[in-house]
Amino acid sequence: MTHGIASGRDTRPLRVRLDDLLDGEGSSWARHVATTLYLLILLSALVITVQSIPDLPPALHGALMGLEVLLLGIFTLEYALRLWSAPDRLRYATSFWGVIDLMAILPALLFLLPDAQVLRTLRVMRVFRMLKLLRMRRALARIEYAIASSRDELILAVFMAAIMLFIAAVGIYQFEHKAQPEAFGSIPEALWWALATLTTVGYGDVYPITLGGRIFTAFVLLIGLGIVAIPAGVITSALMSAPEPTKPTDQRSDNGSSQ
Amino acid sequence: MTHGIASGRDTRPLRVRLDDLLDGEGSSWARHVATTLYLLILLSALVITVQSIPDLPPALHGALMGLEVLLLGIFTLEYALRLWSAPDRLRYATSFWGVIDLMAILPALLFLLPDAQVLRTLRVMRVFRMLKLLRMRRALARIEYAIASSRDELILAVFMAAIMLFIAAVGIYQFEHKAQPEAFGSIPEALWWALATLTTVGYGDVYPITLGGRIFTAFVLLIGLGIVAIPAGVITSALMSAPEPTKPTDQRSDNGSSQ
Amino acid sequence: MTHGIASGRDTRPLRVRLDDLLDGEGSSWARHVATTLYLLILLSALVITVQSIPDLPPALHGALMGLEVLLLGIFTLEYALRLWSAPDRLRYATSFWGVIDLMAILPALLFLLPDAQVLRTLRVMRVFRMLKLLRMRRALARIEYAIASSRDELILAVFMAAIMLFIAAVGIYQFEHKAQPEAFGSIPEALWWALATLTTVGYGDVYPITLGGRIFTAFVLLIGLGIVAIPAGVITSALMSAPEPTKPTDQRSDNGSSQ
Amino acid sequence: MTHGIASGRDTRPLRVRLDDLLDGEGSSWARHVATTLYLLILLSALVITVQSIPDLPPALHGALMGLEVLLLGIFTLEYALRLWSAPDRLRYATSFWGVIDLMAILPALLFLLPDAQVLRTLRVMRVFRMLKLLRMRRALARIEYAIASSRDELILAVFMAAIMLFIAAVGIYQFEHKAQPEAFGSIPEALWWALATLTTVGYGDVYPITLGGRIFTAFVLLIGLGIVAIPAGVITSALMSAPEPTKPTDQRSDNGSSQ
Repeated sequence: MTHGIASGRDTRPLRVRLDDLLDGEGSSWARHVATTLYLLILLSALVITVQSIPDLPPALHGALMGLEVLLLGIFTLEYALRLWSAPDRLRYATSFWGVIDLMAILPALLFLLPDAQVLRTLRVMRVFRMLKLLRMRRALARIEYAIASSRDELILAVFMAAIMLFIAAVGIYQFEHKAQPEAFGSIPEALWWALATLTTVGYGDVYPITLGGRIFTAFVLLIGLGIVAIPAGVITSALMSAPEPTKPTDQRSDNGSSQ
Repeated sequence: MTHGIASGRDTRPLRVRLDDLLDGEGSSWARHVATTLYLLILLSALVITVQSIPDLPPALHGALMGLEVLLLGIFTLEYALRLWSAPDRLRYATSFWGVIDLMAILPALLFLLPDAQVLRTLRVMRVFRMLKLLRMRRALARIEYAIASSRDELILAVFMAAIMLFIAAVGIYQFEHKAQPEAFGSIPEALWWALATLTTVGYGDVYPITLGGRIFTAFVLLIGLGIVAIPAGVITSALMSAPEPTKPTDQRSDNGSSQ
Repeated sequence: MTHGIASGRDTRPLRVRLDDLLDGEGSSWARHVATTLYLLILLSALVITVQSIPDLPPALHGALMGLEVLLLGIFTLEYALRLWSAPDRLRYATSFWGVIDLMAILPALLFLLPDAQVLRTLRVMRVFRMLKLLRMRRALARIEYAIASSRDELILAVFMAAIMLFIAAVGIYQFEHKAQPEAFGSIPEALWWALATLTTVGYGDVYPITLGGRIFTAFVLLIGLGIVAIPAGVITSALMSAPEPTKPTDQRSDNGSSQ
Repeated sequence: MTHGIASGRDTRPLRVRLDDLLDGEGSSWARHVATTLYLLILLSALVITVQSIPDLPPALHGALMGLEVLLLGIFTLEYALRLWSAPDRLRYATSFWGVIDLMAILPALLFLLPDAQVLRTLRVMRVFRMLKLLRMRRALARIEYAIASSRDELILAVFMAAIMLFIAAVGIYQFEHKAQPEAFGSIPEALWWALATLTTVGYGDVYPITLGGRIFTAFVLLIGLGIVAIPAGVITSALMSAPEPTKPTDQRSDNGSSQ
């Protein structure tokens, strides 16, 4: 991974240098390219967000369409350059990042088709573009480390949380479904209550009204809050105890374009 | 518990081998049997959940009925085999797991009776089947360890949380029951508010509207949140600090069928 | 504090033995007396709770009245015995516990007066009886230790939480009081929103509807949640790290009756 | 910073002594002056709060106006004295604290102008006066330390929380915007839902009603709660682990008046 850049002029072939450039490696100029790409992804998120607002003024709508076409062009160029510069093109095209890069442009390309009805549903797939953000190594390394180091714990925690939610739902269903046949008409609806209650979100769309249901809620809350909060707690503590990645180069990612 | 399985063919009598098999011990094949039983319990949970939905299409209702009869057959067979293979049959039948295994099939057997009215109320007792899931040793060992290692702490914490809830309820009742005689008409109703508020669920069905009640709420929240959250915190920290069980065999469970 | 009880029969005068007895010290029998007194306080809490329910059936109301008179008699007897057995009677009568013991019976004594109107307001003062529960040494020692060891931290934390709440309230008032003159009509009302939001209770009685107010809420929540949660966190961590009191005798309490 | 005060009478010139006095340094009398200034800021907060209440009785309104004029006079005097006693007046006037001190009095000075319409909008700028509270060294040193020691972590945490909120918003928008075109009409509105849900505030003004939206909410809550809570957690843990400042003099603040 040391390319002898320090020894004066970079004599490596263009393809190798381009590959590094798009990953933000090798020189401070490369990092600027990578940063620009990240900012363009964020700009794309903003465009998607604003375009979802109904009844936009036509001028703004047109400007957003123009921006989208521009972003589409840049991301298509990025995909083409990555494909060209990859040491093993087939491997890049079928790698995780290769598929993400393709999915970032494919739905948008459909914009240019005349059939407007199809566009509305496929348009949203541009959101996969956000996943390109995860290339941002620092945040990704932490999240990868957090998930890898606590995967078993996380699966067990989600499993225990699910059992707790199920027990709470079946219990409240017994107490409430006669008093409130609309809100607690079935166990799936009671599960929705259990989720909103045990995560303490408490929207207030459904809540127990019988004495038995309220006493049951008290027990479930005093004991069960801790169990349902464990998955989130596992992720939080794993993320906060993840070490800062020492090298900017992330060796765990297998994107087929950095060999 | 070492049965000399490694030394070629298992020469122990069928009863002993069957006993181990149902507990998922002794061979990789046994583990598949145990895993299948767990999946059948989860399938049973799904059937119970979907059956609670009112006005199901008759075809789906029939299919669920069929599934239920199938599950009933399997769990009945499991109970019969466990009873037959237990070293001490009476001890198994009166042990914790023996009673659970019986309760998992008894309410469902009533399905076959013609009187539909009785069925509706007893049907739900099939939920006890979920308790069979707790045999899943890994999750259970953690939960058992967590509760055992923090039982005293937990009792004290629940006690302090209850006092905090009571103080908050009596206080808000004084401030609000004249302004809102319906929402804060009695201390039990004020307790419901205290629970929803101090766990931060906040359904929004009851909340103070007087100035005094709101200032009281501010004090109660800034100080009391921590006290009411302790029971859940005790469980969370105990579960997260519980060691991974080193042996797959759980020696603390007394189910009368593994001696 | 070692009374030589182990050396056969207790030859100390009745007054000294009675004093220990009421505090649950010296013998297993004494502990039963103390436990009974605690249970009577909890029973009293239950009576207060149920009596607050409007339109009780007359029979239940009469039974509760009878229970109240009985409890009143027992607590009055307890006060008389404590006063008689105290080494320094004036000191006990003016000590923290002496005042609490008196307040536990005084409001209830007013029950016996004919004037029903006065009773309703004073009745609730019986709640001070709950404070007698704090004599329960184990819970009290923990809470005392927790507050003593983190008093400075707690004051600073409450102070910072208050500033955070004030900043959030003034901010949201600017954004919302024109769009919602009823909900955010003044800074005190905005403070109520800030409290319900930053503790994540979220009753849903008031919430921002303007774009500016919502963006402000996002910043306040992402950053401010942590600050407002600190007082509760300080108490939680202090309570959970408080050591188990090794001696049943609590030497920090100054109740004038145990010397 | 040791001014030789201990060696009898303070022989330093008035300007130097005044500079220390206003910062509460050098003598117990100086600390009383600083405390009084803090209390006046808190009084000012109270005045701002009460003045925001509509339809105040004229007498109270007049009294508040009088208090405001008094506070204005004191803060103006403080600013004048600080400016006079500063070693480098221009540096103080352009320093952080100098600007804050000026902003604390400027908006209020506009009170004296006749044009009532302008007053209403500028009046609120008096809130900047609260920032003077931050001079309170103990709280400030902690907050400064907490932010300084966890700035990188905080930026990364807010960034990850923002991505999590965006993913949740785009997801729920897909599931709900057809069923609830008013509540989930656009991604910005879905972001408001994501914020209220993932912080567990749960106002209850918007919530999913479709089955898909609710299942999506379950996944987002079980996993995402931990990520959105990280920024607040970073601040909490930084504040709680911040050491007590050993010296009352805060050497990191650059206010141009303490050299």
